[in-house]
Amino acid sequence: MAKDIEVQGEHGGGEYSAKDYTDPPPAPLIDAEELTKWSLYRAAIAEFIATMLFLYVTVLTVIGYKHQSDPGASGADAACGGVGILGIAWAFGGMIFILVYCTAGISGGHINPAVTFGLFLARKVSLVRALLYMVAQCLGAICGVGLVKGFQKAYYVRYGGGANELSAGYSKGTGLAAEIIGTFVLVYTVFAATDPKRSARDSHVPVLAPLPIGFAVFMVHLATIPITGTGINPARSFGAAVIYNKDKAWDDQWMFWVGPFIGAAIAAAYHQYVLRASGAKAMGSFRSNA
Amino acid sequence: MAKDIEVQGEHGGGEYSAKDYTDPPPAPLIDAEELTKWSLYRAAIAEFIATMLFLYVTVLTVIGYKHQSDPGASGADAACGGVGILGIAWAFGGMIFILVYCTAGISGGHINPAVTFGLFLARKVSLVRALLYMVAQCLGAICGVGLVKGFQKAYYVRYGGGANELSAGYSKGTGLAAEIIGTFVLVYTVFAATDPKRSARDSHVPVLAPLPIGFAVFMVHLATIPITGTGINPARSFGAAVIYNKDKAWDDQWMFWVGPFIGAAIAAAYHQYVLRASGAKAMGSFRSNA
Amino acid sequence: MAKDIEVQGEHGGGEYSAKDYTDPPPAPLIDAEELTKWSLYRAAIAEFIATMLFLYVTVLTVIGYKHQSDPGASGADAACGGVGILGIAWAFGGMIFILVYCTAGISGGHINPAVTFGLFLARKVSLVRALLYMVAQCLGAICGVGLVKGFQKAYYVRYGGGANELSAGYSKGTGLAAEIIGTFVLVYTVFAATDPKRSARDSHVPVLAPLPIGFAVFMVHLATIPITGTGINPARSFGAAVIYNKDKAWDDQWMFWVGPFIGAAIAAAYHQYVLRASGAKAMGSFRSNA
Amino acid sequence: MAKDIEVQGEHGGGEYSAKDYTDPPPAPLIDAEELTKWSLYRAAIAEFIATMLFLYVTVLTVIGYKHQSDPGASGADAACGGVGILGIAWAFGGMIFILVYCTAGISGGHINPAVTFGLFLARKVSLVRALLYMVAQCLGAICGVGLVKGFQKAYYVRYGGGANELSAGYSKGTGLAAEIIGTFVLVYTVFAATDPKRSARDSHVPVLAPLPIGFAVFMVHLATIPITGTGINPARSFGAAVIYNKDKAWDDQWMFWVGPFIGAAIAAAYHQYVLRASGAKAMGSFRSNA
Repeated sequence: MAKDIEVQGEHGGGEYSAKDYTDPPPAPLIDAEELTKWSLYRAAIAEFIATMLFLYVTVLTVIGYKHQSDPGASGADAACGGVGILGIAWAFGGMIFILVYCTAGISGGHINPAVTFGLFLARKVSLVRALLYMVAQCLGAICGVGLVKGFQKAYYVRYGGGANELSAGYSKGTGLAAEIIGTFVLVYTVFAATDPKRSARDSHVPVLAPLPIGFAVFMVHLATIPITGTGINPARSFGAAVIYNKDKAWDDQWMFWVGPFIGAAIAAAYHQYVLRASGAKAMGSFRSNA
Repeated sequence: MAKDIEVQGEHGGGEYSAKDYTDPPPAPLIDAEELTKWSLYRAAIAEFIATMLFLYVTVLTVIGYKHQSDPGASGADAACGGVGILGIAWAFGGMIFILVYCTAGISGGHINPAVTFGLFLARKVSLVRALLYMVAQCLGAICGVGLVKGFQKAYYVRYGGGANELSAGYSKGTGLAAEIIGTFVLVYTVFAATDPKRSARDSHVPVLAPLPIGFAVFMVHLATIPITGTGINPARSFGAAVIYNKDKAWDDQWMFWVGPFIGAAIAAAYHQYVLRASGAKAMGSFRSNA
Repeated sequence: MAKDIEVQGEHGGGEYSAKDYTDPPPAPLIDAEELTKWSLYRAAIAEFIATMLFLYVTVLTVIGYKHQSDPGASGADAACGGVGILGIAWAFGGMIFILVYCTAGISGGHINPAVTFGLFLARKVSLVRALLYMVAQCLGAICGVGLVKGFQKAYYVRYGGGANELSAGYSKGTGLAAEIIGTFVLVYTVFAATDPKRSARDSHVPVLAPLPIGFAVFMVHLATIPITGTGINPARSFGAAVIYNKDKAWDDQWMFWVGPFIGAAIAAAYHQYVLRASGAKAMGSFRSNA
Repeated sequence: MAKDIEVQGEHGGGEYSAKDYTDPPPAPLIDAEELTKWSLYRAAIAEFIATMLFLYVTVLTVIGYKHQSDPGASGADAACGGVGILGIAWAFGGMIFILVYCTAGISGGHINPAVTFGLFLARKVSLVRALLYMVAQCLGAICGVGLVKGFQKAYYVRYGGGANELSAGYSKGTGLAAEIIGTFVLVYTVFAATDPKRSARDSHVPVLAPLPIGFAVFMVHLATIPITGTGINPARSFGAAVIYNKDKAWDDQWMFWVGPFIGAAIAAAYHQYVLRASGAKAMGSFRSNA
């Protein structure tokens, strides 16, 4: 019966009189002991490999199917014969689904510096770990795009190298805002999926974390490929820029770091101060569950 | 063994001799205490943000990919190069999947006044909460479409603003009926997914609520985009009409409120009086499990 | 540890020394008591409504998107602007996913006379229930296609009415075989998903029954739409033929009953005599778990 | 509370002080007793049937939708009217999803000699079982493609028979590398999905094994259909080559055995020596959990 009342509570948004879950303590900024453990380095290796596979599959999909049409730079349109923009959006979302699924138990399955940044702000990972992950992700992305260039010499440069660039006709402000909101959607989903409250209570909302996270990436690509090619992952944008190495990709690069980091920060704040906070606590204390 | 017999029972539709679940009590119409709680306002904020993100991503997808072809108003056809109608249908269904997933624990994850109305009729939410949610959803929808207009000035009006309108060649009755049945499919799925009976018994039908709910939206879009552009969500239709603000969108607006509310009411009645009722009870009492 | 060994057993195919599950007893052919229960009629109503919604959404998708191209009868090609064959295949598979999800707890979620027939052969439903379901499914299908005809008068007949017919260039034998194998894929998945062994043991293969069942329908449509338009559901083929009512649809109708019933029977036999049977038992007894 | 800390541990990558799971003992190379058991032969039959259905549905999808355009051999482009490359990629990924789902409890659900090889290297299946499975898979693939040829006489040879061949413009090294990395993605996902650690700890990463495995196949097809048509499954490539039986398919055949086996071996090594190993153990012992 407790269960049914919970379901009711969820749909009626009822108040729970007692906390039935426990928040983990915040991660320290620097954890010296962590540095001595193999699990940290193993996690960094897993992030490196996962980000490499992510860029390899997605950029190969982008390049392979641009044979048919769009001669532009970061553009959108693949012809009928290819997988189309829909197939490209699936490639990004689907890879995040399987890679989060595969690496969640090893590294937490970030595969994205903006996700790492958001989880760092929420004190779920230490500063040391966050920096190590970001380096691993960027190196992995460079290697992944490098593989594509090696495989697709003939087409790689001609079809824009999978690099993120602001499309013609959009202002810098629009591009930045698109990246901010897109990353907000992703990091908000990550927080929702990994909230300790969830497993304790929401028994009818199963803990399928990797699937909605992958879908969030899929959705954002459907919406913003025409604007920026969709970054929402600084490692992805950086890796493609390093290998493609054209002025336009570098000129717009800041947008694909600043936007995702702002979006992730807003998502972390929204989760901590609005969704997880009771009214009074939200006013009176820095951390809602401190 | 109890479990196996249940599976049999399910496929054979056997009768269960004893109730092994408990229905939550009906929500009051007005719950004064509820108004003093932060969780109510937090839920309204979550509905606002979720509906804003829903409209932002979906209408951006609609507009972004109408560059290629259809010059009409609320029409259907995006060209080969874009994500196509299939991609648009995915955007609507996929966003509902992730947003229900993310907000279910906070507000119940309605993101749609018709869903709120259906759950209100079934006495799962109070009147006060229902009205507050609907206001939040409509405001969120306006903001979401407003963002798209801001981002896509050049194309927004030209490509119909994502507004729902009855397509040429269809009668008002057809449009209304399409909205009624489409919303029935959605709200029926919502009731099935959140039925307290489900978690108590149907162990082989896992409680993946957000995924089938998202798919229901996806399916209805595949079927009715050519007829009405698919509303089945009054906040979505209202938000787009406010920002687009053309006569045709306002003239047809009633259809996107009346249809979904009727559909939701039928779904609530079907669930309560047919699926949840035993024969005798259905005749003799207002609420089957009172 | 027992769990881990099970996982190993699964991947290594090890033998389990003791049965850790119980098969439900076979359903009687005629169960007089069942006829007095509201749950039987409620289940039939649920099958009627579900099959109606199934045909409504899928045939509306087929018709709505044939504006663009194919002038043929039961044919295949929708133009770029529409949802395409891929969208049509999603409509069939996705609807089965959500409808099985919604009705599994009420009727078992058959929505298809071939599935009912297969489960009857396996003695999971009584003869009375099986016949009642099939009647409900066929009536539901007629109503669903009728709704589409009402909504789409202008296009319904012109675009083939969603009826199943053997395409030009294929022999009757090929069409029949395509229906047999397609239904085998579906009913095999149904048996695998609802096997009592599954919930007892295969903890790492979660009981997501409706999703793979929906995918099975999706897959078969991808493969056989060009051959027969894909039946694998006699109610679907019958309902469309009744409303469309052209000679060709009636001439081929037998194929969409004989094929699915044979396919379902083979799937039931494969499940009972090969997958569920031990070697000796398979030789010596009629029912593997009698 | 233990649960919450686990979630934290996962996202923070914390070290677990005690092992809370048990690895199964390695499978013997030759297990004489296994040969006397019906379950071994039943598993081989299940692999045979599953691989037959896999090739039947996927190659039928490839052939059926090549009517529209590409007259080339192993090529890529189906026209707008068909399901497109995206539909073909779904067919491969979706079939693996449902077939792994259906056969996991019987045979482990390999349906691919490269998966069997990887699990053999990790000592999860005996040598005898591995060889028997591979024979069953290859025979099943031949039968499946044979059915397609029988059904589609007119088109089968004209549209390349679904055979894997290196596309024009790519070097042998690129093709081999594409197969290696593609199979790595698949087998890495298989290991992640079936890791005994997973069910013991990662409660927020549910054990949806068949879905991410199917998505891995879907993703790799999106990326590498233009290069090799995507093998990553020697039985699939072999079966198509046997029935198609043209020089080009046989000349490139080695690539579709060597590549997948190398990819599977790398995935097995990565899983055992990096992801499952602690630093010290990785140096000092052959098997990390011996």
